[in-house]
Amino acid sequence: MVDAYPVSGPVGSRATIGNVSHHPLDLALPKHVEHALTEYLATRRASGEAMDASFASAVDALADFVLGGGKRIRPTYAWWGWRGAGGDPDGPLAQAVLTAVSSLELIQACALIHDDLMDASAVRRGKPTVHVAFAARHAEQGWHGGSDRFGMAAAVLIGDIALAWADDMLFAAGLPAEVLRRMSEPWRDMRTEMLAGQYLDVLTQAKGDSSADAALRIDRLKTAAYTVERPLHMGAAMAGGSPELIAGLRAFGADIGVAFQLRDDLLGVFGDPAVTGKPAGDDLAEGKRTLLVSLGMELGAADILHSALGMQDIDRSMVDEVRRQLVAVGAVDGVEARIEELTTSALATLSSTPLTEPAAAKLSELAISSTKRTY
Amino acid sequence: MVDAYPVSGPVGSRATIGNVSHHPLDLALPKHVEHALTEYLATRRASGEAMDASFASAVDALADFVLGGGKRIRPTYAWWGWRGAGGDPDGPLAQAVLTAVSSLELIQACALIHDDLMDASAVRRGKPTVHVAFAARHAEQGWHGGSDRFGMAAAVLIGDIALAWADDMLFAAGLPAEVLRRMSEPWRDMRTEMLAGQYLDVLTQAKGDSSADAALRIDRLKTAAYTVERPLHMGAAMAGGSPELIAGLRAFGADIGVAFQLRDDLLGVFGDPAVTGKPAGDDLAEGKRTLLVSLGMELGAADILHSALGMQDIDRSMVDEVRRQLVAVGAVDGVEARIEELTTSALATLSSTPLTEPAAAKLSELAISSTKRTY
Repeated sequence: MVDAYPVSGPVGSRATIGNVSHHPLDLALPKHVEHALTEYLATRRASGEAMDASFASAVDALADFVLGGGKRIRPTYAWWGWRGAGGDPDGPLAQAVLTAVSSLELIQACALIHDDLMDASAVRRGKPTVHVAFAARHAEQGWHGGSDRFGMAAAVLIGDIALAWADDMLFAAGLPAEVLRRMSEPWRDMRTEMLAGQYLDVLTQAKGDSSADAALRIDRLKTAAYTVERPLHMGAAMAGGSPELIAGLRAFGADIGVAFQLRDDLLGVFGDPAVTGKPAGDDLAEGKRTLLVSLGMELGAADILHSALGMQDIDRSMVDEVRRQLVAVGAVDGVEARIEELTTSALATLSSTPLTEPAAAKLSELAISSTKRTY
Repeated sequence: MVDAYPVSGPVGSRATIGNVSHHPLDLALPKHVEHALTEYLATRRASGEAMDASFASAVDALADFVLGGGKRIRPTYAWWGWRGAGGDPDGPLAQAVLTAVSSLELIQACALIHDDLMDASAVRRGKPTVHVAFAARHAEQGWHGGSDRFGMAAAVLIGDIALAWADDMLFAAGLPAEVLRRMSEPWRDMRTEMLAGQYLDVLTQAKGDSSADAALRIDRLKTAAYTVERPLHMGAAMAGGSPELIAGLRAFGADIGVAFQLRDDLLGVFGDPAVTGKPAGDDLAEGKRTLLVSLGMELGAADILHSALGMQDIDRSMVDEVRRQLVAVGAVDGVEARIEELTTSALATLSSTPLTEPAAAKLSELAISSTKRTY
C-alpha cells in the first residue's frame, strides 16, 4: 500500500543546483511524511475496527491530531541525518527510511497529548486539546461520570497508543534487520530523554526552581536531545555513518536544539497567537521556568514575573507589562545572544563534519530557520 | 550483570517426577522474574542519574511499584508457552527468555499506574497509588501549583516510562534477532489489545452500557488477549512453536483469560480487602460494568445496582446488600457456571495441543489456580 506511492520521480527530475537539492523527496518532505502517517493510521484504523468498532473513535482522534498540523521537524532532521551520511533518495531503502522517520511524529503526538493534559492546556494549533475535546464529547452526550475525568482518561490512553504505535510503525517500515539494529540505540535513548525531560520540567515548575541551570538542563533533554540531536543520530545510524560523522551531527544537534528551545521560549511570551496557535502569554500562565524567565529574575524583573507565573487568568495588559520589562532589563537580549552563540557554534561544527551534500547546506538552512526571530 | 545470576543449577538438580518439573527456574519463576526486573531497573537508575540526578525519583517510584507486588502472571504464562513449545531451561537462551518475559511486568506497570489514575483509585496492593503518592509528596513539600495535578503528571510520565522501558528491556534481553522477529507480532498486538481494551472499558462505563456483550468484549481484549493468550503466544513464538501448537495455546489462553477476568470481577465485589489489597466493593464504587453486573441487572437486581454503581462513598452495608441480591437472583451462579464452562473448554483444548511436558501439566494447574474461588 505504501509501495504504491511514488517516492522517486523519473531520473530526469533529480537535479542539484549548487548545494540545493531538487530531489522530490527532499523538496516536499513534510508532504511525504504526512502521506506515510496517513497510510499507516488508515491500516491501524481498519485493524482497530476489526478488533472493536468503538475503538475507531480513538484512532480517529489520534489521526486528526497527528495530521492536523506540526512542522515535521523531527522527521526532517532524521531524514537529513540519513542523507548527510550518504543515504540515497533514489536507493532501495528510501521509502522505508521515510516511513521510519515519520514514526517520530507519533512519539511527538504522545508527548504533546500528555503534555497538554499535564499542563491543563485547552488549545493546541488553534483547536481544543485531546482531553478537552473528549470531555466536551462526554458532556454533550450526557454520559455517566465526570466529563473531565473521561477527557483525562481518553488523553492518557490515546497518548499511550501513539507511543506504542511509533514503535510499531518504525519496526514495520521495511528496514533491514541490520539497519534497525544500528538505529535502535538512538531510538531508545531518545524516548527516555524525552520522558526524563518532561519529568524534570514538571518537577522544576513544582519546585519553583528558576535557575538558568535548571532551565538549560531541561532544554538539553527535552528539546535538544529529543528534537534535533537524536533524530540526526538515528538518521545517520540508519545510513551507517562513521563515529566521527555521528559525533559531529550530535554536537551540531545539541547546540541547535537548545537554540530552538530558547527561540520557542521567546515565542511563548512574545509570539502572536495567530502564528503560534496558543493564547498570548500561555507560557506565563503555565508558570514555565525558562532561561528567559531566569534572566528576567536575575536582571530586575523578578516582582512582575513572580506575579505573572502561574496566573491562570492572565490578561493582555499583564502580558504586555511582562514583555516590556523583559525587554527593558535586557533578558530578551541575553537570550538572543545565547541563541546567536549556539547557532554560530553549531554552524562551525557542521562545517567540519564530513557530510554528503546537499545535507550540509540543508542543515545549515534548517539551523537558521529553526532559531530565527518570528515575532 | 544479569549473566552473573545463576539460572541453571548443576545438571543433577534437574528432575521431573511424573509431570512435575523440579527445574529451579520452573520452580521459582516469580523470584527469577523479580530478580531480572531488579537488575534491569538498577541499571536504568544508574543511567538515569547520569542524565539528571532528580530523574532518580521517577525511577525509584517505578521500581517500588514493579517490585512491590504482583503475581507475575504474564511472565509465567509466557515462560510456559516457551517451555511448552520445547524451550529448554538448561539451554543457552534460558536467561534471555527469562529477561524477555519479565519485561511484560513493565507493560503491566504502565497499565496499572494509568488505570489507577483514570479510575481515581487511591490504593493498590495496600499502598497509595502513584498519583496519590506524588500528590502527597507535593503537598508535604509545599511545592507550587496544585498537588493533584502534580500527582497526575507524575503518574502519566512514570506510566509512559514503563511502557517505553518494557520494549527496551525486551530488546536488550540478549535474544537472537530471529527469535525477536518471531515474537514481535504477538508483542505488538498485545500492547494494542491492552490499550484498546482499556479504552473500551472507559467508554463502556461512560456510556453506562451494562450489556453482557460489552462486558465480554472488554474481557476478551483487556484480560484474555493481554494477560494469557498473547503471553503464551509470545513464549511459543520464541521457541519456534508450530502454527498448530500456537493456535492451541491461544485458544486455551482466550478461554482461561476470560474465566480469570470473571473470577476477578467476583473478587471485585465479594473479595476480602485483606487479600485483594483494595477496599471492599471497589469495583462497585468505580462503576465497573462486568458480566456479573450485567447478569444481576437482567435477573432482577437492577435497582440496587443502579444505586451502587459509581457511588464514591459506598459503605459496607450497601456492599453487603448488593452481595446478597447478586447471590439471591442467581447472578453469582451464572458467572460461576460460565467460569466452569470456559475452564472445561480450555482444558479440553490443552489436552489436544502437542505441548512438551511438564508444560501441559503446569498450564492445566495454572488454569485451575487462576480461576478458582478465593472468597
